Amino acid sequence: MEILILKERDILDAVNIKDIIEADKEALKNYSDGKCDIPLRTVIDVDKKNSSTAIFMPGLVEDKNALGIKIIDIYPQNIEKGLITSPSTMILIDKENGFVKAILDGTILTRLRTGAVSGAATEILSNKDANKFLLIGTGGQAERQLEAVLSVRKIKKAYVYDLNFERAKEFAKIMEEKLKNYGAEIIAIENSEEVIGDVDIITTVTTSKKPVFDGRKVKKGVHINGVGSYTPDMQETPEEFLIRADKIFTDTNEGVLKESGDVIIPIKSGKLKREKVSHELGSLILSREVGRESEKEITWFKTVGFAGLDLVAAERIYELALEKGIGTKIKM
Amino acid sequence: MEILILKERDILDAVNIKDIIEADKEALKNYSDGKCDIPLRTVIDVDKKNSSTAIFMPGLVEDKNALGIKIIDIYPQNIEKGLITSPSTMILIDKENGFVKAILDGTILTRLRTGAVSGAATEILSNKDANKFLLIGTGGQAERQLEAVLSVRKIKKAYVYDLNFERAKEFAKIMEEKLKNYGAEIIAIENSEEVIGDVDIITTVTTSKKPVFDGRKVKKGVHINGVGSYTPDMQETPEEFLIRADKIFTDTNEGVLKESGDVIIPIKSGKLKREKVSHELGSLILSREVGRESEKEITWFKTVGFAGLDLVAAERIYELALEKGIGTKIKM
Repeated sequence: MEILILKERDILDAVNIKDIIEADKEALKNYSDGKCDIPLRTVIDVDKKNSSTAIFMPGLVEDKNALGIKIIDIYPQNIEKGLITSPSTMILIDKENGFVKAILDGTILTRLRTGAVSGAATEILSNKDANKFLLIGTGGQAERQLEAVLSVRKIKKAYVYDLNFERAKEFAKIMEEKLKNYGAEIIAIENSEEVIGDVDIITTVTTSKKPVFDGRKVKKGVHINGVGSYTPDMQETPEEFLIRADKIFTDTNEGVLKESGDVIIPIKSGKLKREKVSHELGSLILSREVGRESEKEITWFKTVGFAGLDLVAAERIYELALEKGIGTKIKM
Repeated sequence: MEILILKERDILDAVNIKDIIEADKEALKNYSDGKCDIPLRTVIDVDKKNSSTAIFMPGLVEDKNALGIKIIDIYPQNIEKGLITSPSTMILIDKENGFVKAILDGTILTRLRTGAVSGAATEILSNKDANKFLLIGTGGQAERQLEAVLSVRKIKKAYVYDLNFERAKEFAKIMEEKLKNYGAEIIAIENSEEVIGDVDIITTVTTSKKPVFDGRKVKKGVHINGVGSYTPDMQETPEEFLIRADKIFTDTNEGVLKESGDVIIPIKSGKLKREKVSHELGSLILSREVGRESEKEITWFKTVGFAGLDLVAAERIYELALEKGIGTKIKM
């Protein structure tokens, strides 16, 4: 039996963000249709003193032939060693015979599938003529978040904002070069107030515990993707915005209601109705929900991620890598 | 970061059965000392029609630096494709930084650690001058079961029995060659009655649902390893033997009481007292139990396996492979 090893470079050679957007849509659809078998993840406290943790996320998306497990380890102390703090590996199993068939770099996989799910939401929910975009946060996930939006809308101006303006400038410079094919002007800004009332699409991807923009100032018709706030104490989205939003969609209602402070905090205080957080993007793709109904509607997509996204994206990467002869084959 | 790939051949080049017997003892000791962190395994029904199942077994044995997950998939239909029916892969994670550090063939790992645990029990429980051995069952696990006993006792005659005598003969012939360094005569027998009252050590490794030897006929002082009967409906060990046994040890009391029909069935019917199955080999290694006290005592070791054995054995294989420069390194 052969195992295909796919490193970051291999994965980026095998697929583009559009492939992963399509894979994510399939994952969302299967999830909302009750066709993802995602057991509870297993967590092992490796070292309490350093808060290092190993997380095992197995799953099956039968209709997409995707069976496997993502391992993600949280090692805050890695930063002192100059290593990433959440090393990750995806193991794909051949659904037909049970043999491990591929090992993928889990870090780039996660970034791609997380960017792509915002891309999918933007494609489905934002106004077709949206051309001004604001990205808030320029950390490890930012590149794929930016690319995903550029790939689904003809963005003329993409503003990037970070608490650290130097970092925003550096990021904009690199992205201007890397993503030049999309033809957008990428502009670092020192203060998001400058553009907040003017942009058509916003993506927030921070680890902030307090709102990162002024929810009263975003314009009618805006679509926002909320990617940070993946723990109950993180809250990057202003409550005023959630109240103003006409429609809220999630990747999974269960995950968002359990993990995201963006909704947990205002639901607890009574400012946000729980029923407003009960619409999945996958159900919309299945035409079981109603999406944007006018150019004026304000929409919000909230994602905390789920194993189905990893599985279907990894399977797609594997298939395309095989087709293109990319990766290293190991005979076991 | 680098991942070391260890195939079957690499593993067999890196370690011998004695190394794994020592590793297993460490795993048993750590387990009985409450130092193994073994979460419930996760099971995914991949395909109900074909009874194919994916099993994920993560764990941590902190003192042995062993962190990882064994994946074992049960695919009965593989037999029609000429493939093994339970493909398996072990993933080792570096406890210090969370990166995957090795991928091992899980099939040979399982065979080695399962043979070695019988070897450990035999070394600890059988009479020192034991020199006649009977192996019952010549399936995939049999080779390592035979070798493990040969490695801990000076066996002169090793009898091998199987329901299928042709298979027993073929197995004996191959083992005679492969294990010739141990100097034992390996003899296929058509009927275990011939030798059952004469042998000093017996290992049963079958999938039988009914007893595979006559429990009244084994001699005083015999030590038996029970390796089959790993589900509640399998019962290879005669109840009369368990009643006659002076001492019973397990790899883990919890696992044996939950999984092995060998004890579940006679406990249910009242023939075997549950308290008789409450002594772990690891506790004996820790000198918290009393082992064999006379040459006449009859001892039984029952193993159903547990993730700690895989983890500590895999870590030891990894360390020795690194030392010896064995395996294929992949840069991720």
